[in-house]
This record gives sequence, C-alpha cells and structure tokens, in this order.
Amino acid sequence: METISANKSHHGTQYVCSHPSIATKTEMLFSVFVPHGDGPFPVLWYLSGLTCSHANVTEKGEYRKACAEHGIIFVAPDTSPRGESVANGETYSMGQGASFYIDATQAPWKEHFQMKSYVENELPELVAREFLMADTSRQGITGHSMGGHGALMIGLRNPGKFRSISAFAPITSPMNCPWGEAALSSYLGGDQAAWAEYDSCELIKKGATPDALLIDQGLADEFLSEQLKPNLLEEACKDTNINLRLRRHEGYDHSYYFISTFLTDHIEWHSKRLLAQS
Amino acid sequence: METISANKSHHGTQYVCSHPSIATKTEMLFSVFVPHGDGPFPVLWYLSGLTCSHANVTEKGEYRKACAEHGIIFVAPDTSPRGESVANGETYSMGQGASFYIDATQAPWKEHFQMKSYVENELPELVAREFLMADTSRQGITGHSMGGHGALMIGLRNPGKFRSISAFAPITSPMNCPWGEAALSSYLGGDQAAWAEYDSCELIKKGATPDALLIDQGLADEFLSEQLKPNLLEEACKDTNINLRLRRHEGYDHSYYFISTFLTDHIEWHSKRLLAQS
Repeated sequence: METISANKSHHGTQYVCSHPSIATKTEMLFSVFVPHGDGPFPVLWYLSGLTCSHANVTEKGEYRKACAEHGIIFVAPDTSPRGESVANGETYSMGQGASFYIDATQAPWKEHFQMKSYVENELPELVAREFLMADTSRQGITGHSMGGHGALMIGLRNPGKFRSISAFAPITSPMNCPWGEAALSSYLGGDQAAWAEYDSCELIKKGATPDALLIDQGLADEFLSEQLKPNLLEEACKDTNINLRLRRHEGYDHSYYFISTFLTDHIEWHSKRLLAQS
Repeated sequence: METISANKSHHGTQYVCSHPSIATKTEMLFSVFVPHGDGPFPVLWYLSGLTCSHANVTEKGEYRKACAEHGIIFVAPDTSPRGESVANGETYSMGQGASFYIDATQAPWKEHFQMKSYVENELPELVAREFLMADTSRQGITGHSMGGHGALMIGLRNPGKFRSISAFAPITSPMNCPWGEAALSSYLGGDQAAWAEYDSCELIKKGATPDALLIDQGLADEFLSEQLKPNLLEEACKDTNINLRLRRHEGYDHSYYFISTFLTDHIEWHSKRLLAQS
C-alpha cells in the first residue's frame, strides 16, 4: 500500500491510499479518515454512487467532525476498477465508476469487475493490516445511490461482518430499475437467480434479518421514482422483524448537499451500534 | 442576477448565482448559503485564496451546519474577474484567480481587476437587493490565504461595514512577501504608498483599530514562513488595543482539511459579534 496523501483534519488524519488489488487486478485508490488517538476504533464503510470515486465524499461529505468525536474510522473505496485496460460502458451507469459492487461473471467485465470480493474481503483485510488502530471486528456500512445499494446488499449478505447498515437514497432493488437491469444483465448475464443475490429486497425476502436499517431519502431527488424506489424496501421489510427507519425529506435532492446534511446522523447511529459492546 | 443552482442543505438553501458586474465588467459567479427561516440574518463574507473560485469553500468548507444553527448567511465571491478578454498572469499567483482584492491602476489589469470595489460595495448591495432576509447592517468577513489578506484588509479599511474580522492562514503583509510584491507592483505600479493601502499590517500601524481579530494558522503550512508571516501581524498589533487571537495549530497544512476543521469556530466567533446587538 502507498500513501498518496495524509492531511491533518479535525484532529485526526485524512489519508488517500493506493494499492494493487488482487480481486480487480488494477491499482485501486481509497480514502481513510483516522481519528486522533490510539484506538481501537470501529470502521464505517462508505460506498459511493455512479460516476464517483473515493474523492467525492472525502471532499464533500462533512463526516470528519462526527467521526473524530465518536472515534470512528471512515473508509471510502472507489466505485470500480479503472484504467485503459479495463472494460467500460457507453453510459455513466455502466462500466468504470459503475460496478454495482458485483462480482461479474460475463465477458468483458469479469476480468476486473470483482468489486463484491474487493469490498467484502480484500480491502477490509488490507485496512486491518495497514491501520493497526482499526478494529475490524466492529464494522458498519453505508453508501449513496448505487453505493447505497452496495451498502445494503453487502451488509445483508454479511451479517457477521457488518453490525450496522444504513444508506442514502439507495437503489433498493436493482432488479427493478433501469440502471440496475442494465448492469445486472451485462455483469451477470440473463440468469435472474444470479441477479437476486445482489438485490437487497430479494435478500430480505429470502430471510436476511438485520435488526435495523436507517435510510434517508430526499423527496426532490430526480431519481426517486424511476431508479431508487424506497417503497420496494418498505414492502420487503413488512412482516419482518427489521426495524426500518426510512426518513423522507422534503426538498432534498440527490447531491452531496443532501448527504452532508444527514451523514452526521448516520455516524451517530452507527457509533451507537458499533461502540455498544466490544 | 441569475440563479445557477439552488440545493437544499442543512435545512437551508445553497445558492450559486451569476451577475454582470459593473466594477469588473465581467459576469461574476458567487455562492450564498441562506439558513431556513425568515431572517433577518447577518452576513458573513468568505474570500478565497489563490487559484480558487466560490466553489472550493462551497464544496469543502463544511460551514453550512454552523451557519444554519446560528442563523448566518454565508457569501463566497470569486477571487477575480475571468474570461478570454480578461488579462491573465503567467503564474497561479497573478491574474485570473489572484486579484489580491485590489482595484488595479495599471494596464492591462485596471480594465477588469476592480475587486476591492466589487467586494466592498457592488456585491453587498446586490446581496441586499436580491436576498431580502440578509441584514447587511450586520456583516462579518473572513477568508483564506490571499483571501485572508483580503478579509483583513477590507475589514480594516471598512470598520463601519464589517463588525467582525477573522482569517485562515492569511497573507498578513503583501508588501513583504514574494506573492504580494509581484501582485502589488503589477496591479498598482511602483508607488509603495499605494501598496500600503492594501497591506493589513500598514493599515494597523496607521491606526485601524478593530476590537478583535481571530486568526488560525497551521504550523505544517508550506507557505508559512515565506508568504504568510503571522509574526508580522503580531508585531503590528503590539502596543495597540486590538485583541489579536492568533492560534497556531501543530500539524495542519494550507488545505481545506485545515480550514474545515476550524471554520465552525470562526462562524461561532462572528455570530457572537453579529448577533450581540442589532
């Protein structure tokens, strides 16, 4: 791992790092905020949305103050492998910047697009090795839009790894929206049983039972009704024991102006769960 | 005035606006955060540093939460006129993005580089006209680096307009640093008496007496000893009644990671002075 930059901020350190990934076979960038002190600190993962990299939330997320106060390490991976040798799509919702956090099985994607394995296993193991103050036995996960889908999906698939799951304006059911249908069919082919493994609503219907989910959704979000569909998550959680807290916010859109308003709430929510018992 | 964008954030609205400036004879962009509610709200001005526009602090400043809580309008102008017809320098510290908030008297700069008049008069009058909840009888001013110089200089020159003055890593004496010497000689010619009108330390020596100044300075700032020189401001304030609070911070650099750490403190400091009496 190489440290690209390290800047003191909010009494801790904001790192940007690079490493050659085994899963994606590319060099991958990610950012890590480490609070001041010796730790051990729980880890909150933030998965970004379409077109973003680690940089968007690192610059615009306004998370460092709350992470410093609560003693939380905040890690933001990239949204896909990148590079000239990596396959790409014709629109912003396919290919580089748009992995949907899937392990692709179809050419030309499968060579590098192994982002589920990268986020579930490789990067947490790297963070645990390189940041000794990180307590990776206590992890939470959140994300935005496509990364909100990623956070829900990876959190639901790995209840032993992630104690707390939240999301901002997530794609709740990629099987049931245009962005997701295009991505799933390209990355996984036509077998809808394979798609369902990456669909949060399907995972809940099949029995995933987190104790709670916190979701924030802006009502002026241009993608709300066609792509995000929070009502599908509400329906999936009905008749389960999942305490779904879905907050709808008048006037907020899909941007970081929305995320930064509520990210402190999410950090507090995760910290209660991550710091409750060790 | 044209509204380029309006995004709900921290229960208020972040605007980016454009207008044809009389002072600079160019179209000028600026950003305005307006808290939720009817006001009247005092106005805090933020002047940005070399190479920046309104966008840097708007995206990375982390100021909206505190402005929302204290009921402060936050305005960030651009750092210079811009455009193909506008003169430019050969380095990042001269010309577009580097006005030093001066009214230039020398060709080719004087045609458009009238940023003192723009920030002191034209833009406050526009904001007062267009944002009726803005109480421009209660204004404070802050800024970073070249914009820290601008905030100190314009604040000191206009005690009747700005009740409170602070800065982040300011150029304290442009007459005594390479960036400033190059800019002052280009924009104003060789007459050092004209330079002194734009030099905060000289303005204090000539009798400017704000009751207090709040300055934050990182000690890992690469420009500290050659360009910024906070000790010159300390010397100028010695034997005056100015309550100079100059905080030196171990490990912090010149970036927005530093500014965003302490901008909330500045907003609280200004709000005490701006909300004290009306």
